[in-house]
Amino acid sequence: MICNRTVETKNLNSERSFSAEKMQKVNLFETERMFADIYCLEPGQEQKRHAHSGADKIYLVLEGTGRFHIGNDERELGQDQIVLAPADVDHGVRNESQARLVLLVFMAPNPNTAKSPAQ
Amino acid sequence: MICNRTVETKNLNSERSFSAEKMQKVNLFETERMFADIYCLEPGQEQKRHAHSGADKIYLVLEGTGRFHIGNDERELGQDQIVLAPADVDHGVRNESQARLVLLVFMAPNPNTAKSPAQ
Repeated sequence: MICNRTVETKNLNSERSFSAEKMQKVNLFETERMFADIYCLEPGQEQKRHAHSGADKIYLVLEGTGRFHIGNDERELGQDQIVLAPADVDHGVRNESQARLVLLVFMAPNPNTAKSPAQ
Repeated sequence: MICNRTVETKNLNSERSFSAEKMQKVNLFETERMFADIYCLEPGQEQKRHAHSGADKIYLVLEGTGRFHIGNDERELGQDQIVLAPADVDHGVRNESQARLVLLVFMAPNPNTAKSPAQ
């Protein structure tokens, strides 16, 4: 049992960061096994459709409304709605509203640190 | 690319479930790689301290205030605060307040479906 690490807490309201240039990703926590980010989208910004081999993503809408594409489904989701983009399924989100969109994103495993099978 | 699955969305407010008997866990999403649950604690209820080998947990406080133990750290967290309980680190949470406590919990990998190394 490991008991001597520093415990880090964050506040979702103070971690937000927007840019006129593009959607901002703010990392909250990252391990070999997963990450949690906040995505901040000004009106008109988007995360383009893409897919992750073998990694699941969850989006939770913290503020605003987003238009989500997951597989062949497209729907608007607002505050407190949560959705799963399963591994290998094409997904993306666009802020088509006139207000800011803030998402909590959880992904597992972490594609940034995943070891290849050969390692 | 898989495009024909049914997309499931949930609303955090309508998924809550409390019991006078003990803390309630409501599963939102579950895959081989992770799960997302809502934990609902009446005043005085708790998730006893425990640890997961090789699996990380994130707690987000959706409502109320909880006293979190993570490793040798103990702290109160309120709405919109988020904390990581890293793999192998002892953790638990207790609702010492007079109000309900609601948590969003992510865990990866999923201990309920993890394959043993021998499989």
